[in-house]
Amino acid sequence: MLNNNIDACIIPTGDPHCSEYLPNHYKIRQWASGFTGSAGILVVTTDNAALWTDSRYYIQAEKELKQSGILMMKDEKGVSQIHEWIADQTINKARVSINAELVAYKKFEKLRNDFNSKSLELIDYDIISQIWFDRPPLPTGKIFRIPDALSRSDRIKLLSRKLFDNRDIDTHIITSPAQICWLLNLRGSDIQYTPVFLSYMLISKTNTTLFVNINKLPKDIHDDLLLNGIDIQPYDCFIKYIQNLEKNKLKKVLIDSNTLNARLHRILKDKFSIEDDKTAPIDKLKAVKSINEIAGIKKALHKDSVSLCKLIYNLKERISNEMLTEKDISIELHDLKAKHQDFIEESFETICAYKENAAIIHYAPGNKDPKILKNEGLLLIDTGTQYLHGTTDSTRTIALGNLTDAEKFAYTIVLKSHIALACAMFPKGTTGAQLDTFAKMHYWENYMDFGHGTGHGVGFCLSVHEGPNNISPRSTFEFKEKGLVTTIEPGFYKENEFGIRLENIALTIEDDNDFLRFETLNFFPFEREAILTDILTNNEIDWLNNYHTETYNRLAPFLKEPIVQWLKEATRPII
Amino acid sequence: MLNNNIDACIIPTGDPHCSEYLPNHYKIRQWASGFTGSAGILVVTTDNAALWTDSRYYIQAEKELKQSGILMMKDEKGVSQIHEWIADQTINKARVSINAELVAYKKFEKLRNDFNSKSLELIDYDIISQIWFDRPPLPTGKIFRIPDALSRSDRIKLLSRKLFDNRDIDTHIITSPAQICWLLNLRGSDIQYTPVFLSYMLISKTNTTLFVNINKLPKDIHDDLLLNGIDIQPYDCFIKYIQNLEKNKLKKVLIDSNTLNARLHRILKDKFSIEDDKTAPIDKLKAVKSINEIAGIKKALHKDSVSLCKLIYNLKERISNEMLTEKDISIELHDLKAKHQDFIEESFETICAYKENAAIIHYAPGNKDPKILKNEGLLLIDTGTQYLHGTTDSTRTIALGNLTDAEKFAYTIVLKSHIALACAMFPKGTTGAQLDTFAKMHYWENYMDFGHGTGHGVGFCLSVHEGPNNISPRSTFEFKEKGLVTTIEPGFYKENEFGIRLENIALTIEDDNDFLRFETLNFFPFEREAILTDILTNNEIDWLNNYHTETYNRLAPFLKEPIVQWLKEATRPII
Repeated sequence: MLNNNIDACIIPTGDPHCSEYLPNHYKIRQWASGFTGSAGILVVTTDNAALWTDSRYYIQAEKELKQSGILMMKDEKGVSQIHEWIADQTINKARVSINAELVAYKKFEKLRNDFNSKSLELIDYDIISQIWFDRPPLPTGKIFRIPDALSRSDRIKLLSRKLFDNRDIDTHIITSPAQICWLLNLRGSDIQYTPVFLSYMLISKTNTTLFVNINKLPKDIHDDLLLNGIDIQPYDCFIKYIQNLEKNKLKKVLIDSNTLNARLHRILKDKFSIEDDKTAPIDKLKAVKSINEIAGIKKALHKDSVSLCKLIYNLKERISNEMLTEKDISIELHDLKAKHQDFIEESFETICAYKENAAIIHYAPGNKDPKILKNEGLLLIDTGTQYLHGTTDSTRTIALGNLTDAEKFAYTIVLKSHIALACAMFPKGTTGAQLDTFAKMHYWENYMDFGHGTGHGVGFCLSVHEGPNNISPRSTFEFKEKGLVTTIEPGFYKENEFGIRLENIALTIEDDNDFLRFETLNFFPFEREAILTDILTNNEIDWLNNYHTETYNRLAPFLKEPIVQWLKEATRPII
Repeated sequence: MLNNNIDACIIPTGDPHCSEYLPNHYKIRQWASGFTGSAGILVVTTDNAALWTDSRYYIQAEKELKQSGILMMKDEKGVSQIHEWIADQTINKARVSINAELVAYKKFEKLRNDFNSKSLELIDYDIISQIWFDRPPLPTGKIFRIPDALSRSDRIKLLSRKLFDNRDIDTHIITSPAQICWLLNLRGSDIQYTPVFLSYMLISKTNTTLFVNINKLPKDIHDDLLLNGIDIQPYDCFIKYIQNLEKNKLKKVLIDSNTLNARLHRILKDKFSIEDDKTAPIDKLKAVKSINEIAGIKKALHKDSVSLCKLIYNLKERISNEMLTEKDISIELHDLKAKHQDFIEESFETICAYKENAAIIHYAPGNKDPKILKNEGLLLIDTGTQYLHGTTDSTRTIALGNLTDAEKFAYTIVLKSHIALACAMFPKGTTGAQLDTFAKMHYWENYMDFGHGTGHGVGFCLSVHEGPNNISPRSTFEFKEKGLVTTIEPGFYKENEFGIRLENIALTIEDDNDFLRFETLNFFPFEREAILTDILTNNEIDWLNNYHTETYNRLAPFLKEPIVQWLKEATRPII
């Protein structure tokens, strides 16, 4: 910093593709601070350091930063914001560096505005590369095929029509690895939980260029891509390639502001007129799952349900006699799932949270002090898997023994809300915010609520959190097509006591008169002992009984005794 | 145009304040084209002319433009847009003029982008002032006081705190007459349906300046304003005043993009850094009605209900024997309302629409061919009034005789939806889009829907359509305070057959645990004969019976026999 006349250095959490999960190569903030949470910004001045994180991580950050000399700053009102703190710590007109490649350009603009208001100069400069000597290299996981009825060239044609017909776009620059994977029917192994490979693409009316580490490409895929007319360039030449493009050669470049980093944005903006669709064209296309993809997702969810039956049966049998922890259950579940053919990895870290731990929405059992389970109360299990034929995400909350009235009441409200949304019928064009109310109204009648979205899109062997479809209070996404795959996951959290979430994956299907409704794709019993039958309506009881009959019929053939008997009991009709 | 080297001239519909209703002085498009609708853009080239309008006005525009030589262009997909049409009609790089003072700046930016894409040059130039010789002068209606417990200086103090505490704003430029009226506890008579006066204001930490035609100010109000420390400048000096401000003298100017015209925006942007809150600070303040205002609105709604009782009783008595038209009823209602003390004017043109006319959402009976009423079918009456003590808006759909099963079914669904929203309980922060679903779910269950918002804010002796509170599919407005006044108005429209809308005004009130709900402010019977009791739930019947009891108790003391007897029958409990 001193050599470069820099007064403060900002180390954000991110990679050049604005990924949700980071390759080890980009776990820079973790390396520099020791804090391992998924969100946080470290700031280092010449004499001081501080780290901002949000309420999910206050306790963890406090622990991990102890004795590091780094101040823990809460990301909340009343606490100094980054620009305010830096202005207090440094001289007037201080120079503050950040690696703009690691920040989404919209976040960067916001940061720059804040900095301007304090007369701080924000410069794009990468210090870390010069000082992190044992930095893990960029990932080199192999790339593999995901066959689909819609071939690679079909997909590129489809995209080209969307891009170039009746629009004055010259080129689309794709910065999202997930979008590139979808377009090319390929997947990779660069990032945990999400089978993508780091890459960029450039599509114009005449050329298609993929920027990727060529060593990751098996020869047959490499040759196939060339046959498809796709030019292959090294991943690390992408920025130079853009820099070498002639100024104003392209009239209009379409970008995706959700995955465009600030450095690339500056380079592009200086050269070309850029345009930004609210939703990237590929995101719109890949949200609508093909018939093959839907069949694959159903199979994937079925595998998970079979694993869960084995897990829960065994857990309930052993709970009174064995000492089991949250972590044990989480590992057993992983091992059961991993036995299935086409298992790749989990799609996120399993949340296995007992009693009051389940009230912490992003809780995952660490290696230290996972809670010991007893034969009472509720255990929340939220788990997902990447199979070659689809991605899963589902949550059940299990009764390990006696429940309190408050637990049963809350469970029943969550179930009513789940059913209300699962049964909703709505005209094409209904927004995610409008749908949210189906899951909320039963809460609100009882002065209850929950603080997370009610549903998110799910990728196909891609990110388990995929836009643009989502159901939440401010979602303006319009549900207007069949084939959208979205979670339904109302929850209820009573601090220091218990947490409940009931999550299925639902597919939009067409009804008459331009109306849509949901088809539930996964089948696993809800917890009969946790339901207060009196507060269910007849329609709700019918839905539940039908769902349970279907669950038994689908899963029983894949299970052995005595698990089949347990399933029969768990899905017995409520009268 | 030739003298000024202009190839095409755009004449929009608007005034410098982006008003909903226009003073005659600004009915420029109407003067130039003969088309009297509330929305439309006229384009004149040296040889040709065309007018774009939306689906509400296709029939009317076609009629009114006949033999004018002006082409009627539908504002819909597949029809040339303005920039495309002009590009076809004119030479390359044509110069196109528009009076930028008459267009909101965001609309102007959109227009300019469109024009750039066709290599057209858009210039800000006012041709009409030079050629409209008998143009009506600017309005000169008198300004009057609206007393409230919150005095003018209280309001200015409140606003100043919002503007200047903890923000680096120097000056707020207020371009909305309604905002100025609210701030000063004054009203005017410049625009039909909305008691405002044309004006601008400038508020800084040290100065408050009002730009208004001084002749409109009675001496006592003029002196009062000076006593309040408000500097008064002529309305027509505002632009010059801004132009004369020293460049960069102000660091940051807060504007309201909803009411800022494009010319003023350019002038401000060239001189100062400008900031735009999503919702103007005064709009946030004036949306929350004071206790006095709420009492006044209740009184206003009560007066309207008394008038409506007289009207509907008389209508039902005479319908079989007299020849009455929609227009007759609309005039009778006006005259009944005008007898009340403190009546100023109607708050919009009464919609009195019989049978299939009611399916046209913006229908109002014109002077030619209003429909003759018979003793059958449904009559929709949507009416509102400006009283000195509040603004009203309500809709009832009246059975004039026998109804079909389809009419009764639709009426009952609309009523169920109205009740669902009127009874909704929701946590503070719930968005308008989330609330929308309460009014929609009963529709959707039956493959029904309607194509307008479910509710809008209502001003206090100001615009009957007031933001920011509104209930609609894309509303991100957060209901988080008591005192918001919003309509609840689900409808159903069967083209060429009938239309139904049931509208009350509702106030947000606080319940326990940071929850809100609505209190209905107006009382007038729903139509018992139109209700299919079988499809109401017990809760809905209870709500309706309570509402009707309350309606009788509130209105009966203000009515004479035989109307009281009619009201007793109309509000008789459903069992």
